[in-house]
Amino acid sequence: MTHKVFSYASQFWVDGSPADSVPLSDRGLHYGDGIFETLRVVDGEIPLLSHHWHRLTLSCQKLGLPFDEPVLRQQLIKFIEHRGSGTAKIMITRGSGGRGYNPAGAKGRSILGWFPEVSLPDDRSRHGLSVTFCDTVLGHSPVLAGMKHLNRLEQVLARAELHNTQYCEGVMRDIDGWVIEGTMSNLFLVESGRIVTPDLSLCGVDGVLRQWLIKNSSVADTVTIEKITRSRLLTADEVFVGNSVMGVVPVIHCEDVQWLPGPVSRRVQQEVFQLFHVDG
Amino acid sequence: MTHKVFSYASQFWVDGSPADSVPLSDRGLHYGDGIFETLRVVDGEIPLLSHHWHRLTLSCQKLGLPFDEPVLRQQLIKFIEHRGSGTAKIMITRGSGGRGYNPAGAKGRSILGWFPEVSLPDDRSRHGLSVTFCDTVLGHSPVLAGMKHLNRLEQVLARAELHNTQYCEGVMRDIDGWVIEGTMSNLFLVESGRIVTPDLSLCGVDGVLRQWLIKNSSVADTVTIEKITRSRLLTADEVFVGNSVMGVVPVIHCEDVQWLPGPVSRRVQQEVFQLFHVDG
Repeated sequence: MTHKVFSYASQFWVDGSPADSVPLSDRGLHYGDGIFETLRVVDGEIPLLSHHWHRLTLSCQKLGLPFDEPVLRQQLIKFIEHRGSGTAKIMITRGSGGRGYNPAGAKGRSILGWFPEVSLPDDRSRHGLSVTFCDTVLGHSPVLAGMKHLNRLEQVLARAELHNTQYCEGVMRDIDGWVIEGTMSNLFLVESGRIVTPDLSLCGVDGVLRQWLIKNSSVADTVTIEKITRSRLLTADEVFVGNSVMGVVPVIHCEDVQWLPGPVSRRVQQEVFQLFHVDG
Repeated sequence: MTHKVFSYASQFWVDGSPADSVPLSDRGLHYGDGIFETLRVVDGEIPLLSHHWHRLTLSCQKLGLPFDEPVLRQQLIKFIEHRGSGTAKIMITRGSGGRGYNPAGAKGRSILGWFPEVSLPDDRSRHGLSVTFCDTVLGHSPVLAGMKHLNRLEQVLARAELHNTQYCEGVMRDIDGWVIEGTMSNLFLVESGRIVTPDLSLCGVDGVLRQWLIKNSSVADTVTIEKITRSRLLTADEVFVGNSVMGVVPVIHCEDVQWLPGPVSRRVQQEVFQLFHVDG
């Protein structure tokens, strides 16, 4: 029994069973043929689960990825049981099969991962972040835009630019110079008390926190989606970034501009911390 | 000894040793963080090896992928030894490590795969192919254009369109409607005896056969790189597709246009078959 508990507590499960590897035939490895979600787990619960599940099922439909929704839901519940708080990762790949790019016949594979930490400690979130503009630009791919798929080389290259700098997040622009998102977060400007977030119809990840903010937060009716230039970002009253694991994080410095965490950023941050049961 | 031979003849090697799986921490799986090459092996030799090696090393440099070039070369030589003819696949992923998108510290991982067949039998290549236009478009990503990286979801979606049709290759256009390439091949038009191939500066894979054709073939000095429209393709004297595994394949049908394999296509096809030691 002790052994079983230990075994099931392993870092990864593949198709519902503990595993530390995936077959070399997996199409996630060969083609990035799959999607993922990273979820904040708080005392065995996932506050933003319904939003994650919505994006996951929609992306699987768009990409034609086979997965058994009730089975995956049960696996996830069992996977996070007794683990407490941390970050869970769901990957759905098209699995093994098909022939070359042709995906026909592949049955899908689910991968669950567990990480005890969150990507940014809450005290650092509270303090705010310095960010910089990355040189790596986001390409335009309307077919893939919005999804959290496994084709993430642009983000890897952008994040690599920040290595050995003071920055743990960078702002990415698209090939036309529009401001789109952070390497691992969505971006929000506050202008005269209203929130603006970039249009993601050509590139970028439509984050779960962004969706929650637009649909469910107390500021939902003030949010608009617009095209945003570099100079508009730098002259905003407040800037904040956010994702479903670290929540909302005020930006306190970008290029030669400094901000104090502003009232709207603080209010939304506090609202997410309440969802996460983080003490104010 | 028998056991050892059997073992080393397994379909995949990882970092020089037979394997059937890869650690779940591999960044190729999580982010498509890597590149690949598929090579035609003819009686234990790789006719286009120098071109493959050139692209592989250049892509690894551009992406900052760590790999030990002499070690990989030795592994490849041993891997294809005694296998005869078929297709070898080299994948180089950034391996395990880093933190999230941040690749710092990842050591790289080499994966070699063996497939006894080639993607299209030579008699079918000789006969020619019917192709159709895919609806899935190629996004513009100048950072990644040209490389054979592991972010291949657009190709998977385009190839999925051909399932249960008569087509085993489709023509992909970019977001502006320019003709770019096949899902698994490069594209060539013949106009008044000269060869034209699409510009790949914003998207597409700069194939090894394409490079050979431009630099080393008997028609090299007739090849130009241009932007190509759908109607220009359909009114070309000849159209052919090609990659380093199947060689050159005449296109004999697209939409309501039919072609007989033309003299330039035949000449280049024959030249590649000679490289591949395929009898005329």
